[in-house]
Order: sequence, then C-alpha cells, then structure tokens
Amino acid sequence: MSEFDDATHVAPDGACEIYDGWDIGGNANGGYLLAIAANGLRQIAGRPDPVTISAHFLAPGKPGPTTVTGEVVKSGRRFATVSGALRSADRTIIQVLGTFGDQSGPRGDLMIGEPPPDLPPMAECSPRNAASAFPVGLMSKLDVRLRPSDTGFASGVKSGVAEMAGWFAFADGRPIDTLGLMLIADAFPPAVFNLDIPAGWVPTIELTVHVRARPAPGPVRCRFRTRYVHTGMLEEDGEVWDSDGVLVAQSRQLALLPLT
Amino acid sequence: MSEFDDATHVAPDGACEIYDGWDIGGNANGGYLLAIAANGLRQIAGRPDPVTISAHFLAPGKPGPTTVTGEVVKSGRRFATVSGALRSADRTIIQVLGTFGDQSGPRGDLMIGEPPPDLPPMAECSPRNAASAFPVGLMSKLDVRLRPSDTGFASGVKSGVAEMAGWFAFADGRPIDTLGLMLIADAFPPAVFNLDIPAGWVPTIELTVHVRARPAPGPVRCRFRTRYVHTGMLEEDGEVWDSDGVLVAQSRQLALLPLT
Repeated sequence: MSEFDDATHVAPDGACEIYDGWDIGGNANGGYLLAIAANGLRQIAGRPDPVTISAHFLAPGKPGPTTVTGEVVKSGRRFATVSGALRSADRTIIQVLGTFGDQSGPRGDLMIGEPPPDLPPMAECSPRNAASAFPVGLMSKLDVRLRPSDTGFASGVKSGVAEMAGWFAFADGRPIDTLGLMLIADAFPPAVFNLDIPAGWVPTIELTVHVRARPAPGPVRCRFRTRYVHTGMLEEDGEVWDSDGVLVAQSRQLALLPLT
Repeated sequence: MSEFDDATHVAPDGACEIYDGWDIGGNANGGYLLAIAANGLRQIAGRPDPVTISAHFLAPGKPGPTTVTGEVVKSGRRFATVSGALRSADRTIIQVLGTFGDQSGPRGDLMIGEPPPDLPPMAECSPRNAASAFPVGLMSKLDVRLRPSDTGFASGVKSGVAEMAGWFAFADGRPIDTLGLMLIADAFPPAVFNLDIPAGWVPTIELTVHVRARPAPGPVRCRFRTRYVHTGMLEEDGEVWDSDGVLVAQSRQLALLPLT
C-alpha cells in the first residue's frame, strides 16, 4: 500500500478518512477529496475507472472520519452513472456526479490538435515546494516539478502568461492510475499566479475531469491554463499526458478570484 | 411567452413536458433537455441563474410529460447547489448537478486570453438547415448561422479543422438569457463534422456549462472546437460571447465517436 492508497481508502460501507498532510494551508486539496469520492463511487458503480466526473466544492475538507455515499442512477453495458457525495458528520464537503466504466481500451489517436507541453527533463524542473511562498503540506506526498519558466510567481517575477506546466509523480513511486488523475487535476499552483494580478486563495466552485485512458507507467506531463478572468471568476483547463505521449485526462474548473 | 419559454416551462411541482420539434432526428436536443432541467432546478435552488451545471445523458428524450426532481445540497450566501434529474415515467433522461446564483454582477474583464471568433455579419452566414444533410427539427425554432468556412461538411468538402463557429438567436426573437445559454451549448453541428473522418451521430456522455455573465441583448457569437479524438471519445469546448464582446458562457462535453 502506498500513502495515496491509504489516504483514499473507502470501506464497503463508505467509511473513509481525510488524512492529515494532503492539504494546502490546512484545507485538504480538492483533487485529493475528489480522489476519495471517486474511489468510493467507483465501488458503488461496480466499474474500475472514472470516465467523467464533476465535483462541486461546498465545505473545506478537514482531517478526520468521513463517508462516501452514493446511488447508481443508471447502470448500462458500457457505463454506470452515480450521484453521490463526500460527507463529514454534519455537512457535505463535495457533491459529485460521475460516469464510470473501463478505460483500458484501445488508445489509438485519431486527431491530436495540440501536442503535450515541451518540458525540460524532470531533474531540471523545480520542485513545487521550492517555488512556494508558504508550505504546501500536500507536496511532501507528491513529486511535482514545475517548468522553470512558470516558477516566477514565487519570486515575484511573473511571466504574465496564465499557464503552469510540469511533471507529476507520487513521491513514493506509486504508479499513476485513473484515481491518481483525480488528484493531479488540482495539484499544481493556479495558472493565474503567473498573471500580474493580486493572487491569493483561488477557491474552486466546480471541477470536472475526463479520463481518456489509463496512464502508462512513469511520470505524467501536465499543463494548466486560464484564458478568461472576469466577473470575479476564472476557468482553468488542464491536460495530462502519459509517458507514451497519450492524453490521459482533461480537466476544467470554475473558480473564484475574489479580488476582481 | 416565446416558444422556448413554453417548451421549457416547469410547474412548481416539477411537472414539465418535452415538446415536439426541439429534436435532431427524433431525439430532443441535449441543450434543450438541459434547459428544461436547469429551469426546474433553479426554482428549487431559489436562484435566478445557473453558474455551473453538469448533465450526464442517460436516455433519449422523447416528446411527452416529464418531471424535474431535485434537492438542495447546500444553500449559501452567494450560491446554492442542487442535485437533480429530468425523468420520464420509467427512467432518468439526464442526471444533473448544478450550482446556481445571480450572474447579474459586474462584467469587467481582467484577462481575455482569446478574442471572440471573427465572423461575417449574420446575414452573410449560412442558416444551419441549409447546410444540413438531414432535417434538424430544432432549427425551425432557432436562427443558427454558421461561418461559411465551417459549412463544407454538408457538401462533403470538409475544412479539416474541428471547429464550428457562428451566430445564434431565437427564431422568434426571444432575448437570450442564462437559460438560453444551456440550449446554445449544444445547438451547433459537432465540430468534428469538419474532420476527414466518418461522421455520424455523436452521442454526448456529459455536458458542463459555465455561465460567466448574463448576455446583453442581441444575437451571440459562438465557437466550438475539438482538439482530441481518441480512445473512441472526443471533447468539444465551446465559448459564447454577447453583443458587448463579453464571454457569457463556456461549455465542454465528452462525447462518443463510435467509429474510431
């Protein structure tokens, strides 16, 4: 068992626990919460992989006992759809709607409109904590390496481009599966940190992840970008590629930028 | 009352009806189904506008009596989140998770990473039905005008670019509100029709719409694009801009491409 498997374990009755140390500034990371929920809901679905899953973030996740609840809305030949939630004793932390299936099928590419990001080798990229203004507990569990040109935000030299790219692996070498992709979708610093605007906490309203394939072994390449910041909100789009150069996940979140 | 208001009416008890004529090849359009559900769920939420809403498509929508059911998961100061469904007598047509609020706030742009599509005037664009190989019932209700360079799919001269842009208005002149944006998110021909691949029915698995602002009066500009077609699936991303040039909605759907 790896740290991630321990921290996302869900018993058959839905009992689980938000582990300490998977946080940013004391609140459990949104991708980590989604991974716990997805692990519980895929059991309810009886299917191995999330295919498309949306989470609405309603309350901070604090370490301690939690529960995944859910019900199958439809179980078909290829997919099963489940509505559910991750709940603590007194409230819903995230509400989730997901469709699950088996994503081990053929990976053949028919059309790739944009290639993976061009990244220096992992050893030449910057560990996220080295580029952080405050301790990010989560980063002791992960090996997130940012593209050097995207790390200026930590020293106040912002690139002016709302993009954050880099490598992701688990610190303990755990293979990346489709559950790991849930975590990855929210594991990088916000792309808007590289814009010349006051940047602080960027709370996620909603996060959707599409799993396009099971990742091949090895670290994955990630790119997160924001195109539109207005009306006090922003979207962040992510892509994750495996070591074979196959797009394995896409993500999109809607988040608040309270200062605009 | 406009045709769209009639066709998306939901009584306080959730009773509603899928109207005939809002279909493509006999099945109700997915955006139309989402608009009905959003209208019911925003009443349950007690908030005027969808902010971010995800729908999983589980069964075809056929004309006749239906019901919107839902429950408030959290009601906060700014947003209310509702889990619900559009159901016929014997099954769930779409399962929906949405967060609702008031999107009449300031529209000021802080960062626009990509401008609206450059479109000829509406009168110089092509009505969708004129560019369709088969009758699209929905199009008698809508005034969808495609950018001429995107209409080659109808005559077999595909552009090779998975993009579909154009104008949208209601045929009866009804103003476009945030409910109308639900319909717009699925009202254009699939962008992959312009790729040199066998193109047929492209069933939506899941569609998420972010409403960024209430549209100003007048037709809206739309652009839909697909970047990745593989593993038998594709994503389609959409943007909708109002007559002031403000981005009012973004959409993303995951769909099947059965022939790959």
